[in-house]
Amino acid sequence: MNLYSIAVIPGDGIGIEVVPAAIQVLDTVAEIHGGIRFDWTHFPWGCEYYLQHGTMMPQDGIDTLKSFHQIFLGAVGMPGLVPDHVSLSGLLLKIRRELEQTINVRPAKLLHGMKSPLAAPQDFDILVVRENSEGEYAEVGGRVHRNGEEMAIQSAVFTRKASERAMRYAFTQAAKRRGHVTSATKSNGIAYSMPFWDDVFREVSQLYPDIQAASNHIDALAAFFVMKPHVLDVVVASNLFGDILTDLGGAIMGSIGIAPAANLNVERTYPSMFEPVHGSAPDIAGKGIANPLGQIWTSKLMLDFLGHEDLGEIVLGAMEDTLDDNVKTADLGGTANLKEVTERVIEHVKLRA
Amino acid sequence: MNLYSIAVIPGDGIGIEVVPAAIQVLDTVAEIHGGIRFDWTHFPWGCEYYLQHGTMMPQDGIDTLKSFHQIFLGAVGMPGLVPDHVSLSGLLLKIRRELEQTINVRPAKLLHGMKSPLAAPQDFDILVVRENSEGEYAEVGGRVHRNGEEMAIQSAVFTRKASERAMRYAFTQAAKRRGHVTSATKSNGIAYSMPFWDDVFREVSQLYPDIQAASNHIDALAAFFVMKPHVLDVVVASNLFGDILTDLGGAIMGSIGIAPAANLNVERTYPSMFEPVHGSAPDIAGKGIANPLGQIWTSKLMLDFLGHEDLGEIVLGAMEDTLDDNVKTADLGGTANLKEVTERVIEHVKLRA
Ligand SMILES: CC(C)[C@H](C(=O)O)[C@@H](O)C(=O)O
Ligand SMILES: CC(C)[C@H](C(=O)O)[C@@H](O)C(=O)O
Repeated sequence: MNLYSIAVIPGDGIGIEVVPAAIQVLDTVAEIHGGIRFDWTHFPWGCEYYLQHGTMMPQDGIDTLKSFHQIFLGAVGMPGLVPDHVSLSGLLLKIRRELEQTINVRPAKLLHGMKSPLAAPQDFDILVVRENSEGEYAEVGGRVHRNGEEMAIQSAVFTRKASERAMRYAFTQAAKRRGHVTSATKSNGIAYSMPFWDDVFREVSQLYPDIQAASNHIDALAAFFVMKPHVLDVVVASNLFGDILTDLGGAIMGSIGIAPAANLNVERTYPSMFEPVHGSAPDIAGKGIANPLGQIWTSKLMLDFLGHEDLGEIVLGAMEDTLDDNVKTADLGGTANLKEVTERVIEHVKLRA
Repeated sequence: MNLYSIAVIPGDGIGIEVVPAAIQVLDTVAEIHGGIRFDWTHFPWGCEYYLQHGTMMPQDGIDTLKSFHQIFLGAVGMPGLVPDHVSLSGLLLKIRRELEQTINVRPAKLLHGMKSPLAAPQDFDILVVRENSEGEYAEVGGRVHRNGEEMAIQSAVFTRKASERAMRYAFTQAAKRRGHVTSATKSNGIAYSMPFWDDVFREVSQLYPDIQAASNHIDALAAFFVMKPHVLDVVVASNLFGDILTDLGGAIMGSIGIAPAANLNVERTYPSMFEPVHGSAPDIAGKGIANPLGQIWTSKLMLDFLGHEDLGEIVLGAMEDTLDDNVKTADLGGTANLKEVTERVIEHVKLRA
């Protein structure tokens, strides 16, 4: 019996509703499998906690998390009540950084039963591997103000180590998929960081002679997501470019509300964190109408990372079956509530087992 | 009689074919108007010139250009023969910089007769105003290599002056359109430059109380271009964000091949430069099959900037009439050649006069 101890941070808003739904799905999967079990420990961290304690999580929160296998997070944020930069830097970005979750992975795949805003999308299935620790998000910079002139400087930091790690991960994923990696660059406009990124990509690609490697400028690549997403397999990108491409990925899938994400510590020194792309959606929170599919797809990514890719496939398949049944929440044009969608997914998990 | 002296740089590849087509259209427009005339002076600068002389343009090229009212450019580039960074920095980027063309303007509009890759696009008509002189493209940075560690640093530079100038231009354009400006930001991830950009935007927006102002993060905004482009009016963006959004704009219009651009010196100290977004397309060059619509739409932007917005409308209308007639080049799914499309546009210009 494999016992996985998981730290659960439902967070705020609809996070509190969709996390239990996905946990039900995972427990069902574990039951079916027989050989694994999840041990869930809940932490009530987030904006509510902040309003009471003045911090998003306790001082020793990071240390507490280190003792778990993985972290399963819902959504964090109370716009209006807690400034975004507080809720982000005090929890999400803090965990990503301190637990060295240096790679962010997000699929963009056209699911059965989803309506893409694209007119005639051929089946696409993209995996965006995003460098998650540095690049354009490095907190290096400042403002100058003198003689009536004023400016801000922001420095992007690209280390070989982090770039290479993201790229290697991209190539190993491509080896399990369609064997193609596309690097997002902008070396025709950005003179230092991007040519460096290109150099590292060229070197790493030589270590994987069986994988096809290509580079595209981010502007053209963004257009590809709209014009011909089916030609892409794995895309490796800097922190910012990955951020932009994954929202585009969500858009062409038909909804950012179903998109999942994994913040990976690929060395497995510390736990990784699995969180859907969507936010806490305070406007619809507490009504039982939130879409649980983002969180459920996120649970598939956790299964994959735990080495249970077969079980991950069952969960994704059950999601597609549910969409095919037209059991959908309002955001996807359906009339079902959270409970009905979750129950239908669980039924299909059982049927597929 | 207003005489406009225009420096013409057809450049390379299909630039040499589409520029004369657009010139014919502009001459027709001038004839109809009666009160304006164009005086065209051709400069054979570009990659061909580089292969003969070792520079993309003569030493005194920039000075030569300064004596003209405007610059009308085709496309530059001979991939394989001349490295991209040579052709770009020796001509396009050099002119943008030295003639202080600090704002880049690109419309994304759903034209009659164009097939968008979006399934059900409502009529959209976006004007992207891009800061064109600094930001993420500032050539500040370098590499460090020691003790087996290696990294590249790239600094983005945002001055109040340039940010404000782009924003003011955006607001004045919005006043002539639907009265809405959206700023592309990423202040939730990028800690110094983007909060500064937001501060300047907040201040500038207070100078235009009749215009609605909003800020969106670039990831969400990219998704908007796919999910609901019709809600956007004027978008103001940094150099990099503008680059990405305008390619997306081209994509949702149905083809980057028809997208126009203006590099503006809004103070009118030096000439501005008008160039289509597409490249030199060496694979189809010289065959008479290139699509002239990008260059023709570019000529509309030049007419607008010269103060002839009524004539600009005639040109754009004639383009739409031509597309409606289904007189299209192969890249748009048609069977017409460059000459046929150009002639049809000219007929419609005459009919609309
Ligand atoms: C070629 C490149 C440097 C350029 C840019 O990024 O400015 C191009 O993409 C454009 O948008 O005109
Ligand atoms: C909230 C923001 C800082 C974050 C990011 O840009 O990383 C989000 O957009 C994401 O993609 O997870």
